[in-house]
Amino acid sequence: MQASKGECMKPIEECTAGIVGLGLMGGAIAMALKKIGPARLFACDINSDTLDEARQMGLIDQGWPGSGAAADEMLALCDLVYLCINPSTLLRFMNAHIQAFKKGALITDIAGVKTGITAAMEQGLRDDLDFIPGHPMAGSEKGGFANAARCSFTGKNYILTPLKRNTAENLEFMKGLIYRMGFGTITCVTAEEHDRKIAFTSQLCHVIAAALIDCEGDTEITRFGGGSFEDLTRIAMLNASMWTELFIENRTPLLERIEQFEGSLDLFKTLIREEREQELMARLGLVRERRSRMNG
Amino acid sequence: MQASKGECMKPIEECTAGIVGLGLMGGAIAMALKKIGPARLFACDINSDTLDEARQMGLIDQGWPGSGAAADEMLALCDLVYLCINPSTLLRFMNAHIQAFKKGALITDIAGVKTGITAAMEQGLRDDLDFIPGHPMAGSEKGGFANAARCSFTGKNYILTPLKRNTAENLEFMKGLIYRMGFGTITCVTAEEHDRKIAFTSQLCHVIAAALIDCEGDTEITRFGGGSFEDLTRIAMLNASMWTELFIENRTPLLERIEQFEGSLDLFKTLIREEREQELMARLGLVRERRSRMNG
Repeated sequence: MQASKGECMKPIEECTAGIVGLGLMGGAIAMALKKIGPARLFACDINSDTLDEARQMGLIDQGWPGSGAAADEMLALCDLVYLCINPSTLLRFMNAHIQAFKKGALITDIAGVKTGITAAMEQGLRDDLDFIPGHPMAGSEKGGFANAARCSFTGKNYILTPLKRNTAENLEFMKGLIYRMGFGTITCVTAEEHDRKIAFTSQLCHVIAAALIDCEGDTEITRFGGGSFEDLTRIAMLNASMWTELFIENRTPLLERIEQFEGSLDLFKTLIREEREQELMARLGLVRERRSRMNG
Repeated sequence: MQASKGECMKPIEECTAGIVGLGLMGGAIAMALKKIGPARLFACDINSDTLDEARQMGLIDQGWPGSGAAADEMLALCDLVYLCINPSTLLRFMNAHIQAFKKGALITDIAGVKTGITAAMEQGLRDDLDFIPGHPMAGSEKGGFANAARCSFTGKNYILTPLKRNTAENLEFMKGLIYRMGFGTITCVTAEEHDRKIAFTSQLCHVIAAALIDCEGDTEITRFGGGSFEDLTRIAMLNASMWTELFIENRTPLLERIEQFEGSLDLFKTLIREEREQELMARLGLVRERRSRMNG
């Protein structure tokens, strides 16, 4: 299945790079790429005001409004394409525009669930293209292009779920780019492993934060906050449509993770209810020790 | 029940203040009081090294090692006493030393559960003393006197659960002191309301953080973290013996809160499992809106 495309990526400084979707993450990636300095930086977005703003601030060289023929025009020029759109739109976009990509282009995405897109690209990509599925673990509870500048990549994690067809050269190119954008760690895993891990570190945490807010109607409760409640629920200010997509698309591992968590919660409930002081203290001691061996 | 003690507190600058227990919070309170400048600042602690260190750094004027006769000596000199010891030790300490306190002294505590101590002090305090139960909502996952300096009070919440016998003058004195230590909000409520609210904002959050760590053995999981997991579990580095006490002492409201939370979690689980996209999105939208109306 190893594609022999017969050509390497040029250095990024000689590439034309295109961002599809100039929202929070698309904007932040455009800003990070801009600093590295591709030959030209383009973007397409359904919101032409955003494109105007990005051009006026000198971020992009040209903007293509809409997601139809204009996007095709842009794609035909790009050596590197960063797809920064919602998971549900991603496959539709690829199917609609597959003929428009420039021969030899390297494509990547940022979707938070990887099994679907990875399987689809393993099968349905043009032979002369390469697609490296990725997930930059960064974001902000304030969305949209207007907040892109506050989305820092420094030291953050980036996950790649490479296809069998990815060339070693393109993977190296991609990793170099990711580190130059400021990310601290790159982890390459299968899409399935990504989805199981992310169900825990990201989606379960968002479900918990949402449930914590959902179960208490008093917004004055923060007068009784000492920091923990605030820290646990900041991510409850979530983008409802995107997280609905992520939760439902990744529901199988997510539901498993929720149930694992419920199992532990139940154990603590029992120890507290039955006043099993020594066992509770021992278990909390183990938790402290395990957490202190984790980063972050 | 209003006690007529016939005397007001002197200004703090003329008071001798004593800290019982120079751990993380006792140390942080000593540092905050020191800046305000009482006439003399004393401390007693079972660890004489800590007392030596505090004296050598100029924080306290004198230290009394141990919790027996030495504590009695210190208490006999203090106009203001800050009890900074674990909830379970608190009542025992008060009973053992009740005769030692200076006539007219104002006593306060920092325990995270208030029903027990408040009821006990309402009944069993000497007539010539005053006791204002309190809970400074500050702390750090790194405990002990060595970390006291990193425990900031700036803008934090402070809860008081006044006794019927508290004089208006002493309450005002206490509030003035709290604001001068840097706290941002003081809320006066019954001990029962405190315990119900704190069960939610503090204890439930700690149980959740502990359960999240408890249910995942892989300490390398943070390579898949994007900030939410790290934020939700930082408080899992908890002081196991203190939190065991707090969970068990406040178990009735805490178990209620855990069950409320489980109810919401269950609802989200159902919406995800049954792919009820529109309802899920609407519910997450409400969550976002409610959280954005909260502080912090």
